[in-house]
Amino acid sequence: MTHKVLLLPGDGIGPEIAAQAARLLKACQEAGLDIEVEEGLVGGSAYDVHGEPLPAETLEKAKAASAILLGAVGGPKWDKLEDLSKRPEKGLLGLRKNLGLFGNLRPAMLYPQLASASSLKPELVAGLDIMIVRELTGGIYFGQPRGIEERNGERVGFNTYIYSESEIERIGRVAFEMAQKRGKKLCSVDKANVLEVTILWREVMERLAPEYPDVELSHMYVDNAAMQLVRAPKQFDVVVTGNMFGDILSDAAAMLTGSIGMLPSASLNESGQGMYEPCHGSAPDIAGQNVANPLAMMLSVAMMLRYSLNETAMAERIEAAVGSVLDNGLRTADIASEGTRRVSTVEMGDAVLAAF
Amino acid sequence: MTHKVLLLPGDGIGPEIAAQAARLLKACQEAGLDIEVEEGLVGGSAYDVHGEPLPAETLEKAKAASAILLGAVGGPKWDKLEDLSKRPEKGLLGLRKNLGLFGNLRPAMLYPQLASASSLKPELVAGLDIMIVRELTGGIYFGQPRGIEERNGERVGFNTYIYSESEIERIGRVAFEMAQKRGKKLCSVDKANVLEVTILWREVMERLAPEYPDVELSHMYVDNAAMQLVRAPKQFDVVVTGNMFGDILSDAAAMLTGSIGMLPSASLNESGQGMYEPCHGSAPDIAGQNVANPLAMMLSVAMMLRYSLNETAMAERIEAAVGSVLDNGLRTADIASEGTRRVSTVEMGDAVLAAF
Ligand SMILES: CC(C)[C@H](C(=O)O)[C@@H](O)C(=O)O
Ligand SMILES: CC(C)[C@H](C(=O)O)[C@@H](O)C(=O)O
Repeated sequence: MTHKVLLLPGDGIGPEIAAQAARLLKACQEAGLDIEVEEGLVGGSAYDVHGEPLPAETLEKAKAASAILLGAVGGPKWDKLEDLSKRPEKGLLGLRKNLGLFGNLRPAMLYPQLASASSLKPELVAGLDIMIVRELTGGIYFGQPRGIEERNGERVGFNTYIYSESEIERIGRVAFEMAQKRGKKLCSVDKANVLEVTILWREVMERLAPEYPDVELSHMYVDNAAMQLVRAPKQFDVVVTGNMFGDILSDAAAMLTGSIGMLPSASLNESGQGMYEPCHGSAPDIAGQNVANPLAMMLSVAMMLRYSLNETAMAERIEAAVGSVLDNGLRTADIASEGTRRVSTVEMGDAVLAAF
Repeated sequence: MTHKVLLLPGDGIGPEIAAQAARLLKACQEAGLDIEVEEGLVGGSAYDVHGEPLPAETLEKAKAASAILLGAVGGPKWDKLEDLSKRPEKGLLGLRKNLGLFGNLRPAMLYPQLASASSLKPELVAGLDIMIVRELTGGIYFGQPRGIEERNGERVGFNTYIYSESEIERIGRVAFEMAQKRGKKLCSVDKANVLEVTILWREVMERLAPEYPDVELSHMYVDNAAMQLVRAPKQFDVVVTGNMFGDILSDAAAMLTGSIGMLPSASLNESGQGMYEPCHGSAPDIAGQNVANPLAMMLSVAMMLRYSLNETAMAERIEAAVGSVLDNGLRTADIASEGTRRVSTVEMGDAVLAAF
């Protein structure tokens, strides 16, 4: 059966890195992978054409796809849009919500070849390999009521941080299963000393624990987790947390590696359908210059092959190709260091394809 | 006029470090400072005696004081308390709220003598000096409605992230004024691409900016701020943000210095009354062992002298004493490194008093 893959380049550097992913998909097809690739518009570039960050057509295509590859969305061009519902980010959030992509997997791992790129001392990050499991379709991102309104003669802004037991349980199971496949340690991050919603979160995690006796569950307050990531990141194996804390901590964790331009992510729903995207953003400041690092996007293809298409061998081929390109000393600007060869987005794409 | 100072040792290592602060206060009195020092119970230790983390008596004393010095609250002993309103943290939150201590100043600065304690590469943190201004009496910490209740056959937990224009303006002014006294750069941290409450936040900050033409205002999303703190912390001068983001970012920033045991903080209300406490927590794992670092607590005394009692000269004497003790190579366990002399809590207190 032919898998449908939807490629959504998005904004900023999105189209440039998506172009390299498209070449890689073609190479996979030539190597025997049975996929059909379509493209679509999302984010600011969709707004510019359709007046909507998530046009109905894109959503239709997304629903019909086995997997989605997304570049990045957003940029200063659309930051001034008064109507929040038209902003590029709503395209991304709409895809997550409409497809039920509640399980966000954000690995933060250090490539040995790039150890010096980290801002942390080498001994603290050597071999770093954390998996952050972030809930992606609930919490304060989607909670109601929300808005800005007049109360007692002045405006107030408000959002609602809310989780139900079933939402927590669902993401908890993803995290426990992930821990079983990895180092068997799961740290659940909350703010249970202040927020009721995270008291419930902690309680549900505790309730699940006996079903996964091989996994060691611990709890950490979010402020402490932010500290511990800076102090001694290797203490973590799998981390599970809600949408907002996950947004913050996964970015901090990714940056610990010094090479966020290398990190892919997956967002999965209950039927294994997934959206794959780089952890980095749309980087409008370097868009259109052929300098962005396409590797996170190309590794997102590998992650897609592994998690949604069950094509482990092909995924490994891509990862090995990336590894050998790094071994050969090729670097885009973001990961450049002394004694390496600086290459452009397209040249990096070329090199990965040549090694594939 | 005699200033009243209320000392609240609290839990964990709180009493040990508060004892060193008490000795320092006595030395200040002997040096001519006109203060009267009282003690009180707060947190778990208050709960154990009165069944309340913030007994009425403590609150009365706090209201009558010019300034409060607090050690730390919380510990595993009270973590299992079902009733959140009885937890140690509620003592702290109650003091903040009842005294209107909305302006939380959390400096993250690197002592040159401790440069090697940071987990970041030295060149990235040398000379680091960030001031985080955190709103402390609003936001999701205090927003209503909140709770855990049954809806559609299952429990949901919820909290409300809410700010009014006047709350935002008030903390914004503290931050702009702080920036005027420092490097004239203010970065406001929000999540205005997702949360309405922070759209209002950003709008109010923008509205204030023309009143402080010498300050350069910028905005950053919280996930990016967490990354930038790890990547290049010296880009920041003053950072202003809400209660929850401030909790997370100020801890991350403090940890960047590698010596959170050195950092004091101030929480001020509109009349300049303030509560002063270390940035670190109650560290129950090392409580009672005479190994905790008392310097953040002793520097909190200096911060109190500066901000609430207007005794700049005496504050500088304390800071100089701490500096000379570090110069002499004395270190508690948390900041120890090769070639320095390891001392206990009390010995560190002795040394500061001797140098004062
Ligand atoms: C673009 C933005 C809405 C998004 C988020 O906050 O989830 C991004 O930061 C991410 O982490 O994928
Ligand atoms: C103890 C806790 C309630 C408190 C907070 O979250 O504000 C602490 O983490 C702090 O930052 O002072």
